[in-house]
Amino acid sequence: MNREDKRKNDELRKLKIVRPYLPYAEGSVYLEMGNTWIICTATVEDKVPSFLRGTGQGWITAEYGMLPRSSPTRIPREATLRRIGGRTQEIKRMIGRALRSVTDLHELGERTIYLDCDVVRADGGTRTAAITGSFIALYDALDYLVQTDQISSVPLNEYVAAISVGIVGDNSLLDLCYIEDSEADVDMNVVMSETGRIIEIQGTGEKRPFEKKELDNLLKLAKKGINKLIKKQKKVIGKELT
Amino acid sequence: MNREDKRKNDELRKLKIVRPYLPYAEGSVYLEMGNTWIICTATVEDKVPSFLRGTGQGWITAEYGMLPRSSPTRIPREATLRRIGGRTQEIKRMIGRALRSVTDLHELGERTIYLDCDVVRADGGTRTAAITGSFIALYDALDYLVQTDQISSVPLNEYVAAISVGIVGDNSLLDLCYIEDSEADVDMNVVMSETGRIIEIQGTGEKRPFEKKELDNLLKLAKKGINKLIKKQKKVIGKELT
Amino acid sequence: MNREDKRKNDELRKLKIVRPYLPYAEGSVYLEMGNTWIICTATVEDKVPSFLRGTGQGWITAEYGMLPRSSPTRIPREATLRRIGGRTQEIKRMIGRALRSVTDLHELGERTIYLDCDVVRADGGTRTAAITGSFIALYDALDYLVQTDQISSVPLNEYVAAISVGIVGDNSLLDLCYIEDSEADVDMNVVMSETGRIIEIQGTGEKRPFEKKELDNLLKLAKKGINKLIKKQKKVIGKELT
Amino acid sequence: MNREDKRKNDELRKLKIVRPYLPYAEGSVYLEMGNTWIICTATVEDKVPSFLRGTGQGWITAEYGMLPRSSPTRIPREATLRRIGGRTQEIKRMIGRALRSVTDLHELGERTIYLDCDVVRADGGTRTAAITGSFIALYDALDYLVQTDQISSVPLNEYVAAISVGIVGDNSLLDLCYIEDSEADVDMNVVMSETGRIIEIQGTGEKRPFEKKELDNLLKLAKKGINKLIKKQKKVIGKELT
Amino acid sequence: MNREDKRKNDELRKLKIVRPYLPYAEGSVYLEMGNTWIICTATVEDKVPSFLRGTGQGWITAEYGMLPRSSPTRIPREATLRRIGGRTQEIKRMIGRALRSVTDLHELGERTIYLDCDVVRADGGTRTAAITGSFIALYDALDYLVQTDQISSVPLNEYVAAISVGIVGDNSLLDLCYIEDSEADVDMNVVMSETGRIIEIQGTGEKRPFEKKELDNLLKLAKKGINKLIKKQKKVIGKELT
Amino acid sequence: MNREDKRKNDELRKLKIVRPYLPYAEGSVYLEMGNTWIICTATVEDKVPSFLRGTGQGWITAEYGMLPRSSPTRIPREATLRRIGGRTQEIKRMIGRALRSVTDLHELGERTIYLDCDVVRADGGTRTAAITGSFIALYDALDYLVQTDQISSVPLNEYVAAISVGIVGDNSLLDLCYIEDSEADVDMNVVMSETGRIIEIQGTGEKRPFEKKELDNLLKLAKKGINKLIKKQKKVIGKELT
Repeated sequence: MNREDKRKNDELRKLKIVRPYLPYAEGSVYLEMGNTWIICTATVEDKVPSFLRGTGQGWITAEYGMLPRSSPTRIPREATLRRIGGRTQEIKRMIGRALRSVTDLHELGERTIYLDCDVVRADGGTRTAAITGSFIALYDALDYLVQTDQISSVPLNEYVAAISVGIVGDNSLLDLCYIEDSEADVDMNVVMSETGRIIEIQGTGEKRPFEKKELDNLLKLAKKGINKLIKKQKKVIGKELT
Repeated sequence: MNREDKRKNDELRKLKIVRPYLPYAEGSVYLEMGNTWIICTATVEDKVPSFLRGTGQGWITAEYGMLPRSSPTRIPREATLRRIGGRTQEIKRMIGRALRSVTDLHELGERTIYLDCDVVRADGGTRTAAITGSFIALYDALDYLVQTDQISSVPLNEYVAAISVGIVGDNSLLDLCYIEDSEADVDMNVVMSETGRIIEIQGTGEKRPFEKKELDNLLKLAKKGINKLIKKQKKVIGKELT
Repeated sequence: MNREDKRKNDELRKLKIVRPYLPYAEGSVYLEMGNTWIICTATVEDKVPSFLRGTGQGWITAEYGMLPRSSPTRIPREATLRRIGGRTQEIKRMIGRALRSVTDLHELGERTIYLDCDVVRADGGTRTAAITGSFIALYDALDYLVQTDQISSVPLNEYVAAISVGIVGDNSLLDLCYIEDSEADVDMNVVMSETGRIIEIQGTGEKRPFEKKELDNLLKLAKKGINKLIKKQKKVIGKELT
Repeated sequence: MNREDKRKNDELRKLKIVRPYLPYAEGSVYLEMGNTWIICTATVEDKVPSFLRGTGQGWITAEYGMLPRSSPTRIPREATLRRIGGRTQEIKRMIGRALRSVTDLHELGERTIYLDCDVVRADGGTRTAAITGSFIALYDALDYLVQTDQISSVPLNEYVAAISVGIVGDNSLLDLCYIEDSEADVDMNVVMSETGRIIEIQGTGEKRPFEKKELDNLLKLAKKGINKLIKKQKKVIGKELT
Repeated sequence: MNREDKRKNDELRKLKIVRPYLPYAEGSVYLEMGNTWIICTATVEDKVPSFLRGTGQGWITAEYGMLPRSSPTRIPREATLRRIGGRTQEIKRMIGRALRSVTDLHELGERTIYLDCDVVRADGGTRTAAITGSFIALYDALDYLVQTDQISSVPLNEYVAAISVGIVGDNSLLDLCYIEDSEADVDMNVVMSETGRIIEIQGTGEKRPFEKKELDNLLKLAKKGINKLIKKQKKVIGKELT
Repeated sequence: MNREDKRKNDELRKLKIVRPYLPYAEGSVYLEMGNTWIICTATVEDKVPSFLRGTGQGWITAEYGMLPRSSPTRIPREATLRRIGGRTQEIKRMIGRALRSVTDLHELGERTIYLDCDVVRADGGTRTAAITGSFIALYDALDYLVQTDQISSVPLNEYVAAISVGIVGDNSLLDLCYIEDSEADVDMNVVMSETGRIIEIQGTGEKRPFEKKELDNLLKLAKKGINKLIKKQKKVIGKELT
């Protein structure tokens, strides 16, 4: 298959990471995944949602937004519409789950970490890019807590990254851009840890149901991509989690 | 493992379907899946969302709600809160996707079918019960369009049902009740068609990442349960889709 | 007059009460009044609105909702509309007032009881059915407080029930169904206690003003119906209030 | 009984009406009923709510607001709270019903008349004062339609006014001021036409249920007060409806 | 130039002030500036916004509203629209800034003063009239704190008033009425203290940019008008600030 | 005075402009003014607000937002709060007015241009940076309409830029950064055209009223800065307006 940008079917788009990006946040990353550009910041607050008060446990939550012209058609601001759409809700919940799953929330203590993911330019894969970038911002925010003697070590169990895969016509593709995504028969987002285990899988037969065998192929492809992303994350952060 | 209600690990809860349930809706079902009770109705409207106007294509959309005391703790009404929570958004989008995926929206014509799923009593698996029940309500609403000569045949490709599966401790369980769900390490919702193909899979490592092999087991379990659910749907509806 | 369902002018619709209906609520009732079906639950919470804090006095408040297809035409969800309509507000306030009027709120202590009334099927008289059903749910919630030694006796002064009456053409009718209600010249909702005293009366000349004599007739009719409803409530609860 | 302001039990507060009050509205009235001051305006718009489009019938609707310091304690603005409270909803619906009941909406034609009632100073009886004042504003707006040859005659059947009555201790009182209202055992709002017929009655046993005989007394008292109010309205308008 | 109402270019409209106007508020003023009529009240509350808690400093904040028929075209209520428009926000912020600038917020102590400005009739210059009137209401509320021994002296540094000026065609005009304002090339609102110093200036070239020299002329005109307004305020209040 | 960043009192911060920045928008600019970073895009839509329909006239409107961590303290998203704050409203109205004032809206025709200004990093002067950057985005969007033969020439009369000035202690400063702004006695935002005429001036005595002479000095300083900004704009755009 001839992909839009000459990539091979199992090839990631060009990845660029700027870290730190903004001076104020405890962790901040600017990430480019091809033409998907995203800013991820991590903010530490010394309180937790009411359901955790007094438990000694912390919380990680995410918010997600798109700048109006991150997209070919202008997206009306959710602030102006005075409501958050279903897609945004779905994505922010997914990011939060993914990063909570590898964090020891008891070691974090009664603190909340906000992960803010803002899409500057969207070309498919924004939610997975948000997870990949947020992991680094989260690491830095946790490291900030270590540096300031608030916790003793970074309470992360594993590196985490995410990627989209899909079936377009007869091809299983890694890291779909927008045009590929919109034509995909099957669309899947995969979040994996550095040991290759699954943290979250969301697969949808957009145009048709799909076979178990197709699922298996897509997962293999995703694993390949995620391995590369985690290698890059490790290079940027410069440390293993032990 | 000793399940709460003495079920075997691969056993569904007791299923009860009342159809039709409410006289006004074009399709309506009351479904009990153990202690999860849900009302699913299908409503036909002769207009479509603006992005489909003039395309000749129809739309299927879902809404989901829980009665305040469907749950051990009273759930404040979203109407009173004046906003729809992320979980509700996620579920209503999933129900809509599942049923759109087996419907020929062009044959439906420029009509919208609303699937309203209201949980009277919740004991886990409400979103999958909503899909299983909504399929029958949707069938009836489409059949109503056939009976009233608005379309020529029911534009459904396959039967669809959904079930939750999960890993609790060392056990892979089918059809988790609430207490099992809240203790699950891995939680997965699967939507499948009668040919055993996947329409949607959403799996999350709630307490730990999970292996590909575990995913495979869960999918097998889900398939087993969904086969039984579809058998029941067919018995209730009394017709094959051809 | 030939009523829709062959009833006599002073005849109630068939009444069915299931109690308890839902296991989680402190009180819960499923009530059918002909084709009006409603679920009433009572929830106890150990706090009161700010204007009562520190007064030692409790509060009773009601919420009311209709399932989208409880009605011939689908009613858009108030959650989706992000606002509660005037009719809903009016009804929830009426239910709350009716039940507060026979409860000793000081004996209740600093607790709030939420009465949630959800209409599954609507055929007129939903607000009065909500009051009749909520009384039983309220009794059970208060009895739960007695059983758990939180208060010493059920702090209710009298049984309460409610019914609609109206004038359709030349006839004064008891317990109007929807079609009768929509044709009524005069429409009245009456809440009465077991001693036949008035707790609330709301009468409106929908199509024309009405005479005092007509009001008197309607009140007599309402009293007759409410006596029967209270007899039924007493049978279900099995106890007098002394 | 010694009333706050030395009035007899069956005596109205001092009534003052300024008409017209604001130059822009098609009808406008400033009304003082003792220390209850209210501005009522009527606005004509050449469109109707969607459920009336194409029916040839018009509509009358009301809105009600209180200035923040119309009350001893500052009332937060509903605009700032971004929602309209239940009491406001109840009142605006009551005003609308009262005035629609004496208007021939078909003769009005496909127009909407907005009655805006804004309370400058509140001392009990604001909803009934709003009805009494709005009637005059409505008359003027309808007369404006006659003067501008849009309709042929003022489509009102009868004069309408409203008053509150109540039982405080052993006394039945006419036209309760705030302090009386807050101590009342029984509180009733009555809307009547010039022929003494009832348009709306809303009676509530605030502190105790009440007897039919008490209702009768209150209605007599209300009739007496409303007769005086309508006499005043006629003097201000200077015309009979025929 | 022939002004609408025969005024000279540097002439204010007729000013009328009623003080106090409403008995409940700690300060209240009814102000007429020609056909612009406004009610300003000041309310004292014994708490401050969270950012000031524990600082010993107080706060002054304003709210602004227009009655629906204060204007030739009915203005939909912001309460009904469930949002506060940009113009309202802009005005309420301006009123708050103006009055905070001459108040010693530390001497006020941890209290908030709400200035509610409600326009009964609008004919241009409502925001400046709101400032001029609110100053008097604020004075009275502060004086009430002095009289009740809560603070030792009125913590105001200077008298403050505001006026609009503008360029219409070739003329610089003082105190624009609505029709002049809507035709103005340049529109300016000026808030000044009794010593002739500027507290706020907001000038906009509505139809064309304007020269510095034009700005100078407008400021001179504004100063002249504000001097007269402050003279009137002093006469009403009857005291100098020293 | 020793400014934070060693600048002279009349010196602008370092200005960097990237144009175009995003490929999808009709005009887009990334602008850095020291540590204030902002993305401005211009979007053309072929419809106008209802008050302009059928007039042949176009409209320019702006929206403004801040990323949560553009600021030292995380700013909660207005989308999540479901309302747009007063400061945001004030700024978006100011940007819109500034750019409408130099555009011939009749030549634009019945189109709306949205100017979206999103602050990535905030260090004072965001609203003026938004105007300076939006002008270029607006030019490009208008030029796009020319290039696509929708209008015949760019309907802009003059170049426009904006800057903040203020008095901090004894110093009049140009282009205040955040720390200077928060300590300023007097704060002023000035929008000027290339001929040095004023389009908007907003000056506030934050800590004290100010003299006319001080205003004059600030205006001179602003003019100096704006001249430089317009020089830069012209260099970027590469064309004079004639």
